[in-house]
Amino acid sequence: MNPKYAELKNRLMEIYDLTRAGAVLEWDQETMMPPKGGQARAEQLATLAHISHEKFTSPEIGRLLEELRPFEESLPYESDEASLIRVARRDYQKQSPVPAELTAEMTRTGAMAREAWVEAKNRSDFKLFLPHLEKTIELKHRYIDCFGAADNPYDILLDDYERDMTTAEVQQIFEVLKKDLVPLIAAIRARSDAVDDRCLHGYFSTDRQREFCLDVISRFGFNIDSWRLDPTVHPFTTSFAIDDIRITTHYYENFINAAIFGCMHECGHGLYDNGSDSVLERTLLCGGASLAWHESQSRMWENLVGRSRAFWKFFYTKLQAAFPDRFKNVEMETFYRAINKVQPSLIRMEADEATYGLHIILRFELEQEILQGKLHLQDLPEAWNARMKAYLGVDVPDDAHGVLQDTHWAWGSFGYFPTYSLGNIIGAQLWEIILTEIPDLYTQFEHSEFSALREWLREHLYKYGRKFTPPELRQRILGGPIDVGPFIRYLKHKYAEIYGIS
Amino acid sequence: MNPKYAELKNRLMEIYDLTRAGAVLEWDQETMMPPKGGQARAEQLATLAHISHEKFTSPEIGRLLEELRPFEESLPYESDEASLIRVARRDYQKQSPVPAELTAEMTRTGAMAREAWVEAKNRSDFKLFLPHLEKTIELKHRYIDCFGAADNPYDILLDDYERDMTTAEVQQIFEVLKKDLVPLIAAIRARSDAVDDRCLHGYFSTDRQREFCLDVISRFGFNIDSWRLDPTVHPFTTSFAIDDIRITTHYYENFINAAIFGCMHECGHGLYDNGSDSVLERTLLCGGASLAWHESQSRMWENLVGRSRAFWKFFYTKLQAAFPDRFKNVEMETFYRAINKVQPSLIRMEADEATYGLHIILRFELEQEILQGKLHLQDLPEAWNARMKAYLGVDVPDDAHGVLQDTHWAWGSFGYFPTYSLGNIIGAQLWEIILTEIPDLYTQFEHSEFSALREWLREHLYKYGRKFTPPELRQRILGGPIDVGPFIRYLKHKYAEIYGIS
Repeated sequence: MNPKYAELKNRLMEIYDLTRAGAVLEWDQETMMPPKGGQARAEQLATLAHISHEKFTSPEIGRLLEELRPFEESLPYESDEASLIRVARRDYQKQSPVPAELTAEMTRTGAMAREAWVEAKNRSDFKLFLPHLEKTIELKHRYIDCFGAADNPYDILLDDYERDMTTAEVQQIFEVLKKDLVPLIAAIRARSDAVDDRCLHGYFSTDRQREFCLDVISRFGFNIDSWRLDPTVHPFTTSFAIDDIRITTHYYENFINAAIFGCMHECGHGLYDNGSDSVLERTLLCGGASLAWHESQSRMWENLVGRSRAFWKFFYTKLQAAFPDRFKNVEMETFYRAINKVQPSLIRMEADEATYGLHIILRFELEQEILQGKLHLQDLPEAWNARMKAYLGVDVPDDAHGVLQDTHWAWGSFGYFPTYSLGNIIGAQLWEIILTEIPDLYTQFEHSEFSALREWLREHLYKYGRKFTPPELRQRILGGPIDVGPFIRYLKHKYAEIYGIS
Repeated sequence: MNPKYAELKNRLMEIYDLTRAGAVLEWDQETMMPPKGGQARAEQLATLAHISHEKFTSPEIGRLLEELRPFEESLPYESDEASLIRVARRDYQKQSPVPAELTAEMTRTGAMAREAWVEAKNRSDFKLFLPHLEKTIELKHRYIDCFGAADNPYDILLDDYERDMTTAEVQQIFEVLKKDLVPLIAAIRARSDAVDDRCLHGYFSTDRQREFCLDVISRFGFNIDSWRLDPTVHPFTTSFAIDDIRITTHYYENFINAAIFGCMHECGHGLYDNGSDSVLERTLLCGGASLAWHESQSRMWENLVGRSRAFWKFFYTKLQAAFPDRFKNVEMETFYRAINKVQPSLIRMEADEATYGLHIILRFELEQEILQGKLHLQDLPEAWNARMKAYLGVDVPDDAHGVLQDTHWAWGSFGYFPTYSLGNIIGAQLWEIILTEIPDLYTQFEHSEFSALREWLREHLYKYGRKFTPPELRQRILGGPIDVGPFIRYLKHKYAEIYGIS
């Protein structure tokens, strides 16, 4: 092995270990940690972030990345070695302007704000969270300032989650999305009595929910040798190695959708992380190309697979067996329509596929206004509630069901939300391609057969990890730019049938 | 604040954070991690160990420790500042001769060996564990070699767990112990039919066991705001902060003792860690003075409290309510005698208070013979079984119930076992003192009142954390050296009554 490359790789692996250690500590904080552990945990996370940032942005790494240019250029672009150097260089360029102290401070603040957010959400009181959010935004500005002048400061944040994507591009895409969604939702609302979803509400024991979810995701690819499923306040997925995948969910005893579709969603994330080529282990090439691509997978397994009729042709009798009191007298078709009911609602995570995008657009707009200083944080709940009324026609009863519902802002994840909708769009583009390559896909679902889909995704997407940028992946797999068309076609086709609209 | 002291403290806190991060990763490995996560976890732990060792043994720390001597000497010995400098210097002297690479390698090997041990124990096959143990012992020799010539190489290892204690001292103490225990056990065996412990065997649902254990330890001081209790293969306690205490246990559905007394044992460890003065948070002064002192607490809460008649005067009706099928027709006195039955047995952790010491002496002797090269590792199971026969008169049926029962050797913890018996002895010495200071202690137990005991321990022991060395603590609290007398007096008094011996 090239000795300089070996040195770079060793250094990067050590840094990667530190980031994974941090991930374990965050996972523990969100699933296991007793509440009073929060302050020490924030310090531990800050220390890990400080050291790994310092090591990664060290002059030695910079020098090695420069000296390895000829080696990199001598190798095929897709090779593991060239890819590691290339992706590390890009990460280096993004992280170098940021002082390690600021990274540590953002991490500490995030961990403390997360604890405050749990408390604030439990009490449904935004005021408890406000000082933490103020600190977070102050740090975001300091972070943005590290990069000098940008066309739009939001670009800096967006790029952390979706490399090379600009705010303007997202705005354009969302404009098209909104233009198509609004009349579709209006048409559906005119026929809202066509779907009855009462069967989804009632009593569902947590144990049974967990058992059913595990049955589903085990068929997707969840395996107890390499995965865990745990309850948490706000579901997420993380991974500490290609074969150490942690997914989480939240069970509601009076509503079945959150856990079932939540588990499929997180399993999609987990399959992506679990699908990295094993030679990428312990390097920063593990994982997903970007959050939008990651979301394309979570939303694909949740919606394109899990909300399909073919899927339930197999699983519905199992669901009936798990919850006979609720479902024994409910036809599968009634259930299928219920889980696809379009209905403006308060909670993003439980939103149907059509109105979901409006939840995202709302957050995308508010985030920009906050960063531009147009919206003061103390006015955020009011702005949230007003926009929910304007976009979705719903009245927000309290902060817990409004501005405090998501954990992202607590962790400082501004610029993250748009990737959910981009994921929906990319997923639908991928889906059209997959359906031409595996024409009997839905028939396979009817037999609980998901391996062809999973292996196609592993072969075309998962195994590459972070080797390619989002634009490169788009070119390679989708053959062109992000296109709202397939997503809208998919929705129209589905809802035309369910709601009898044209 | 003295700027050099501030610099030292900041550096030490950063290092402490790294060790706590490692503790989280180990806890996760032993309670949560899916099996295939083992290899990556070993690398992550090795990286954390490497970096924290490198930072701690850096020339800057050495320089600060020297430069701070006048500052230290200007302060009271017990002050937080002088204590931090003094204890850090001693740790520095012990760790400096060891290369960071070796520390990392020992950590990596331990984490891998732990996974192999679980597998070997499940299959009851020592051969699966043997190569890992060989590697571990090779590393132990390399570790010992770092310190140059020692009177006894085992001293180096023992000192890691019990500072300033020598092998010769332990041998002397154990000689006395053995001399007293052997005739006591023989006298009891002659009357072995005096106690019937059949009530402890049967079916006990894990959920009910957990509930009962939580009830007990909550009254000891376990609090869900700062503690967790989780199941594991081999019970242990760890802490990530003064207010983040993790205890673990193992439930057997056919035997109630392991979880009940195991939980009290681990709770004792947890109370010690949880009792450090809050000003010591995030420093290496947190925790316990030594393992023997730590064990004095786990064994005290398990045995001196948990196996007392007074304790069960309160809790037995609760136990009957939890397991009516097993206990409704069993008198409290029968139960009390059952949990105090003396009976040579296979498993250390389940051994009675009298035979327990022989399990320890056996391990202490085997460890020395292994390190001296007198016992080859492939012969270890045979040697184990022969000595179990000789000391306890029992036939070991398989490796799982023999040489593979404990996890310590997997993690490389050689020199650790003696501290269990030293803990029993110190605990009994402490107990005699406490009984003179709180004369109605047992009456308090009858009312489930443990706060006077806990607060006495906090005030005299827990709050100091690691400020004092074991010899200093002995002088301060016990007023003299380790003395087997109180422990033997306690046993004789207890068993004289139960077994009607003189």
